[in-house]
Amino acid sequence: MNLKTDSLEFDARPIGVFDSGIGGITVLRELVKAFPEENFIYLGDTARLPYGSKSAETVRKYSLQNMKFLMSRDVKAMIVACNTASTQVFEDHFENTPVYNVIDPGSALAAAKTLNKKIAVLATRATIKAGSYVKKIHAILPDAEVLSQACPLFVPLAEEGWHDDPITNLIAFRYLQNLKTSDIDTVVLGCTHYPLIKSAIQKVFGNHVQLIDSGEAVALQIKSDFLSQKLKRNSNRDVSLMIALTDSSEHFENLSSQLLAPVSDTKICFETVSVI
Amino acid sequence: MNLKTDSLEFDARPIGVFDSGIGGITVLRELVKAFPEENFIYLGDTARLPYGSKSAETVRKYSLQNMKFLMSRDVKAMIVACNTASTQVFEDHFENTPVYNVIDPGSALAAAKTLNKKIAVLATRATIKAGSYVKKIHAILPDAEVLSQACPLFVPLAEEGWHDDPITNLIAFRYLQNLKTSDIDTVVLGCTHYPLIKSAIQKVFGNHVQLIDSGEAVALQIKSDFLSQKLKRNSNRDVSLMIALTDSSEHFENLSSQLLAPVSDTKICFETVSVI
Repeated sequence: MNLKTDSLEFDARPIGVFDSGIGGITVLRELVKAFPEENFIYLGDTARLPYGSKSAETVRKYSLQNMKFLMSRDVKAMIVACNTASTQVFEDHFENTPVYNVIDPGSALAAAKTLNKKIAVLATRATIKAGSYVKKIHAILPDAEVLSQACPLFVPLAEEGWHDDPITNLIAFRYLQNLKTSDIDTVVLGCTHYPLIKSAIQKVFGNHVQLIDSGEAVALQIKSDFLSQKLKRNSNRDVSLMIALTDSSEHFENLSSQLLAPVSDTKICFETVSVI
Repeated sequence: MNLKTDSLEFDARPIGVFDSGIGGITVLRELVKAFPEENFIYLGDTARLPYGSKSAETVRKYSLQNMKFLMSRDVKAMIVACNTASTQVFEDHFENTPVYNVIDPGSALAAAKTLNKKIAVLATRATIKAGSYVKKIHAILPDAEVLSQACPLFVPLAEEGWHDDPITNLIAFRYLQNLKTSDIDTVVLGCTHYPLIKSAIQKVFGNHVQLIDSGEAVALQIKSDFLSQKLKRNSNRDVSLMIALTDSSEHFENLSSQLLAPVSDTKICFETVSVI
């Protein structure tokens, strides 16, 4: 084995992750938990959030700007940690760098886990309208029955911090009561905010229904790419965790620090940036 | 009276109104109701909504871009129909054109209507943080007691269309129960979305408490400026009603058509525009 091959086995560059707001932190949390030896840079496009109510063209334009920004920070891979943005990022590579979305691994995990082939997808209006989960799941399990439900209030409830709350339970019941009667066994949390209110969703369906978290799904995908050496690991244990925001927000900094504290003791560096 | 003076008495140019989203339509509705002979152009910055969670600098930058856009459409006056934006627009003229915000007339109306000088202000986190209502009301009534309450879920509830709904009543009760015990007699709806869920707010306080709607307050201010000829009226009854959006949205078009239908039978022209 020569020196060149050795040097190719490790890659100290950070993994880039982006979302419009706090939702993608649930994905970052799963990645930091799974890969504590990696450097991460997270971009939260807080100046233009939320993406869920915006048109396809606008979401694509913003996503491309975000990816260019991450490339300027020399990332080795990019994760589109937002379902709405994932419906508009069609590239699996961007400027020769691998791009992961949350819909492909989420769909694959749901298809692998369902026993009765009855799956529900919960997401923002934009993601449901794009129909990506239904298409991806049908590509793997053509005879699966896939039901969809837009839940527009889940994002503001998650951002308000009413995670385990009777009002959140009531709203979850309002959105999901029709699905509950449909004998589904697997529910895709098709918005990265939704893991924050997982317990309210689980309460409506009961414990026999399994919830698919995109963050866990994408971490499994990346683990597999590290094993096959498609992606190279970092070898240095002195890691960095950077959060760049397009609009400074104390509320965001507090909430993300709180969400990441249980999985990492690395000091988070916050920075305000422009991506235009 | 010569021809020149005659021509100055009327002004056919439209009145420009802007907000980040659907909220400002409640202001437009009051203006259209009060001045059916005027032309209006409404700008909804839907590509960057909501403003309530963004920083002061960002909200100011967006507001200036919106005002420049309205100027490019040759308006005779501009109304900042968004409380968050009103906290960051300090100009009473922009390129020689009068600018109205919603905070000054809302504060004046609340100060005029209160009997016991106990007033509550309900608004987004950003508006409450800016403290503008408290300052303006104190400038008129220095001994007034002004309490504030941020209600972040009211905007998404209004946008979801759950206007007269038990869940909205419950959330209103959660946010407002402490205020209810404070013997206030006047409540400022310090966000232009809030008139859409007025009935839930009124239910918490009871009918003896008066709610101040910024749209009504700004219409009174403009009426007074028409009477003093500070602003010139339009003389033509063949009017136009234009809604320009920075991001196309079918949901927005439906909701705004529905809100304006009871006050105007003028056909609304929708247009997608860029303000950057």
